[in-house]
Amino acid sequence: MPIIAATKPPGRPRCQETRAAILQAAYDLLESGGLAAFTIEAVAERSGAAKTTVYRWWPTKGALAMESFLRASEVLSPFPETASPLADLRVQLRLFAKALGGRSGRLLAGIVAEAQLDPATRDAFIQSYVLPRRQAARRLLERGIALGEFRPDLDPDSLCDALYGAFYMRLLFGHAPIDEAAADGILDLLLHGIAAPDPRLK
Amino acid sequence: MPIIAATKPPGRPRCQETRAAILQAAYDLLESGGLAAFTIEAVAERSGAAKTTVYRWWPTKGALAMESFLRASEVLSPFPETASPLADLRVQLRLFAKALGGRSGRLLAGIVAEAQLDPATRDAFIQSYVLPRRQAARRLLERGIALGEFRPDLDPDSLCDALYGAFYMRLLFGHAPIDEAAADGILDLLLHGIAAPDPRLK
Repeated sequence: MPIIAATKPPGRPRCQETRAAILQAAYDLLESGGLAAFTIEAVAERSGAAKTTVYRWWPTKGALAMESFLRASEVLSPFPETASPLADLRVQLRLFAKALGGRSGRLLAGIVAEAQLDPATRDAFIQSYVLPRRQAARRLLERGIALGEFRPDLDPDSLCDALYGAFYMRLLFGHAPIDEAAADGILDLLLHGIAAPDPRLK
Repeated sequence: MPIIAATKPPGRPRCQETRAAILQAAYDLLESGGLAAFTIEAVAERSGAAKTTVYRWWPTKGALAMESFLRASEVLSPFPETASPLADLRVQLRLFAKALGGRSGRLLAGIVAEAQLDPATRDAFIQSYVLPRRQAARRLLERGIALGEFRPDLDPDSLCDALYGAFYMRLLFGHAPIDEAAADGILDLLLHGIAAPDPRLK
């Protein structure tokens, strides 16, 4: 399924097409064989691009693998931008839950495992996947604070850890389902907190 | 450091000592070499127990490894029981943060990685570590609900995922520190939620 070509970076049309073809080939390889079978050679062969072209844009196979995974995630579970960032967050989490239930979830679990064994994979994963996704989440939260939907003193980093950590935990341990109901349950918990309600509201 | 002998299960004193010695030897091996170097043979040799004795109590090396890790965790980051379950939770999370910063954190990251590659490790990890720890967390939460510190409608599973998932995320990705301040930040976020405060409280 060509899920990457839709999001093209700026640049000359020819370059854009080549980049998109390389990223698509990279993601296809990643999805079918995980990181173990992933090589720049295989990506070049599959995309029809020269190896030197691939290396010009991505210095390491980790950087290419993670950018292709990021681009696929931006299509599978985007961060919407409507007038309600809270509603956007709910949609985002539901889409993320859906993505985790499919091949991209198994791929992500494999990447997290590999990142524990190989520091280069870990660095590429953080730099080219985790941090850009966090930037998107942070922008959503800042819009929500500005619009009065989220409390102004919330710590975006702790929130991202708690919110997305809950999904990763379910993905990695498999002790509970990851679906829309789970996404809603986790968001509602985070929204309203666990402390007993203020007695002034009773 | 003998950190297991302190928590003995019921049974005849001789059996208790042998069990404690086996669990301690298992944890020492696990901490020094991870799951890769962990074998029932090595545990038997180190503890002085017969291999048949070890197999009588633990059918697989995964079950033994995870029980030894659970017992060590019960000593390093116990769930206290005082008159304030909320204060207990804060202490628990601070101790857990401290444990994750040490050797037991690196060990846990390795176990999570191995669990993605090997279903038997994953099953043993869930059954002999994750679920017993969740039981302890659930008891704490239920005490807190009964005493009016936590909201009665909270979903303990989602809470455990969000709370501990945040720590696992930091452990696995290393993008942010895991310390007392982090533990307090995550707990306070979960306590009060991220929704803008109710205007009736202004």
